[in-house]
Amino acid sequence: MPVPEALTALAKILGDRLSRSKSDLDLHGRNETYFPFAPPDAVAYPETTEEVAAIARICAQHDCPMTGWGAGTSLEGHALPVRGGISVDFSRMNRVLQINPQDMDCVVQPGVTREALNQELRATGLFFPVDPGANASLGGMASTRASGTTAVRYGTMRDNVLGLEAVLADGRVIRTGTRARKSAAGYDLTGLFVGAEGTLGLITELTLKLQGQPEAISAAVCAFDEIGPAVETVIETIQMGIPMARIEFVDAATAAAVNAYSGASFPEMPHLMVEFHGSEAGVAEQAESFGALVGEHGGHGFDWSSRPEDRNALWTMRHNAYYACLATRKGATALVTDLCVPISRLAEAVEETRADIAAATIPGPILGHVGDGNFHAILLVEPGNTAELDEAKALSHRMVERALRMGGTATGEHGIGMGKLGYMDKEHGAAWDVMGALKQALDPNNLMNPGKMVRQG
Amino acid sequence: MPVPEALTALAKILGDRLSRSKSDLDLHGRNETYFPFAPPDAVAYPETTEEVAAIARICAQHDCPMTGWGAGTSLEGHALPVRGGISVDFSRMNRVLQINPQDMDCVVQPGVTREALNQELRATGLFFPVDPGANASLGGMASTRASGTTAVRYGTMRDNVLGLEAVLADGRVIRTGTRARKSAAGYDLTGLFVGAEGTLGLITELTLKLQGQPEAISAAVCAFDEIGPAVETVIETIQMGIPMARIEFVDAATAAAVNAYSGASFPEMPHLMVEFHGSEAGVAEQAESFGALVGEHGGHGFDWSSRPEDRNALWTMRHNAYYACLATRKGATALVTDLCVPISRLAEAVEETRADIAAATIPGPILGHVGDGNFHAILLVEPGNTAELDEAKALSHRMVERALRMGGTATGEHGIGMGKLGYMDKEHGAAWDVMGALKQALDPNNLMNPGKMVRQG
Repeated sequence: MPVPEALTALAKILGDRLSRSKSDLDLHGRNETYFPFAPPDAVAYPETTEEVAAIARICAQHDCPMTGWGAGTSLEGHALPVRGGISVDFSRMNRVLQINPQDMDCVVQPGVTREALNQELRATGLFFPVDPGANASLGGMASTRASGTTAVRYGTMRDNVLGLEAVLADGRVIRTGTRARKSAAGYDLTGLFVGAEGTLGLITELTLKLQGQPEAISAAVCAFDEIGPAVETVIETIQMGIPMARIEFVDAATAAAVNAYSGASFPEMPHLMVEFHGSEAGVAEQAESFGALVGEHGGHGFDWSSRPEDRNALWTMRHNAYYACLATRKGATALVTDLCVPISRLAEAVEETRADIAAATIPGPILGHVGDGNFHAILLVEPGNTAELDEAKALSHRMVERALRMGGTATGEHGIGMGKLGYMDKEHGAAWDVMGALKQALDPNNLMNPGKMVRQG
Repeated sequence: MPVPEALTALAKILGDRLSRSKSDLDLHGRNETYFPFAPPDAVAYPETTEEVAAIARICAQHDCPMTGWGAGTSLEGHALPVRGGISVDFSRMNRVLQINPQDMDCVVQPGVTREALNQELRATGLFFPVDPGANASLGGMASTRASGTTAVRYGTMRDNVLGLEAVLADGRVIRTGTRARKSAAGYDLTGLFVGAEGTLGLITELTLKLQGQPEAISAAVCAFDEIGPAVETVIETIQMGIPMARIEFVDAATAAAVNAYSGASFPEMPHLMVEFHGSEAGVAEQAESFGALVGEHGGHGFDWSSRPEDRNALWTMRHNAYYACLATRKGATALVTDLCVPISRLAEAVEETRADIAAATIPGPILGHVGDGNFHAILLVEPGNTAELDEAKALSHRMVERALRMGGTATGEHGIGMGKLGYMDKEHGAAWDVMGALKQALDPNNLMNPGKMVRQG
């Protein structure tokens, strides 16, 4: 096992920024959900691209795996170094390098978190819109092609990364994309590295698109007897071109959980929560047009507001919905599913899932990003109860099969990581072999986050 | 030379849909701009994916190059079979296979043109927004990552292809993406094939996003003394979040050409032409907000209208601007440049280019998609005058160098083809080698559109 030689060489260049402390190894071997503990042999804390390149050259020389680490908020165990080697922790590469207000872009290191970036942007009137809920690192968000509540308006990380710098498995440093808004110059390497989960290289810099803070924001909430008419309302809203900045669904169980957790008083019914960005007159008009559609589809209690305090309360409740669901079962851990289907199939997918969970012994509130056809069941499992975990996995398995049958995907935004690798063949068929060929071309010795993404030898 | 054996085998499966007629070879050896005639050895007209796959298997067996052909509207000679072999002409694969109004997507064969698709969509209230001007095929548009006047609002082909089917160099058929709106499942192969210019495979089917026809459209036109304040107006409009569906720039020379060609009466000054999509009240508000910014920046003659006839007249003039410029010099052919820079550098890039052209002996009106920082100089050359063509190439060369120096790209939307291959090294550096490695992984015998995109051995 050549890793010890790699560690000796790495310690020479990194000093005490190569850590083998138990607490560091423990932290980088854990994950947010249910995957087994898998610690690295050491944790490297590079401070520059040149250091990352030097790390990669040493690891290549000694055949030592490298797995990137951002904020550790992945729900699919992406950052677990399942074949050992080193975790490359980007927390010291956390500077915002440029903010270009005229071009509405910025250049950041991968360890900057989304909240830290938005804090720095506050004075500029700009913001970075991708919002997965957790205060993830932007490098991690790019690597997992993250999205969240605002994707319906602003897109996913795929749409918001203009270019990047990456260190390849052999230590070469490449730059992809430019600061131009569009380009037809060659293969879209930016798009290839976004969502590659660190298996093709380590992202060391990102150029991101920014958005102007809207002049006005309005938010609305309403209840429905069934999911079907709620989805119909959303479909018609989109078809009419009413631009929603967020359009979220929570089921009755989630509404009840939010009531208990946040002291809200939602009726225990399916709800839509929506936000509009635009001019004062524009957001008022949009909310009213949306309200009319809600009424046509039998929605109840439609209420909209442009007061920031009402809006913040609503989205705080939505962001805390995951914790609210967890709190309904004391001490529970969650297996969180992440289907995404064509929106025409969404109501059917949610209803089938709802019925499947109702027949199980474990609870599983459902919530999601209805404008994208993406929803999550939060399957609540007693820690250490393997029967329950197996039941959750079986529910999750049937959900994925359902999504694929409906022309959708196993994962809308959480990524493959450890949890969805078993579905790559079924979802992609021969295209999965193409992914393997690309991996082989760029990382022939399988040192970049090995054990993930491609067919395992 | 093994091509004759390939042709014999191809004729067996295609019959008279493998053509060696002079007119067919001539047509597929020509291009819209200035590249030398380069005919194929034969033209194949497949009708199904299975036939394309069979063609690829035969070509692979006999080492015969394959180059896709859509509508032949490329400005960079993409479809020229510069190393011989066969042109694969997709004109018989021109069916719209699915229109899914609820999901706002459709599935098309690659030979469908953009106008034909929009014609079929007319009754649905939906439209496909990407508009490069020419009535290109959608397969060609995807392969070249085309965009045009509406990219500022609706994005480029990168943003509007949800998934695709492609035939690889060895005849394997793959499907990328799904009909879900987003996915975090694996490498973004859709993005890799969009813009690959047929060098990784032949696209045989596309799943495209559609947009709802806006309730109302308003258009506006205004003049400026200089390009600088025009660009400032656009930057502030974008920063304020006023959603422009089109925002086009034409310089004084183009305005004069349009007057002569279309009987318009624009002052001979730089102009902005803009379009807004939304509700009745929304587009009125947007036009007025934009008009206020125009006034603040010293713009003249601001005039907006939501009457379809006014709007159509404006965009017909804009779409004909290329022909209007050509008509200013009888019998001229054009070398059309395609820079794209960060918008903060756009005024400077246009001004430097303007001065450079003014010092040359050939005319070169400038127009472009100012919201994307993308502009074209239409360099007008007397056919057969090699001194003029050399001068145009030298101007184009300095323009590309200028774009790269300003953090931009050699091509915003026309692609690499034959004309920009010489800039790939400078624009991409080590990333160009990565492109070569990907090409090698998927097409090791260099049969897919050889002579393009990657470093030439």
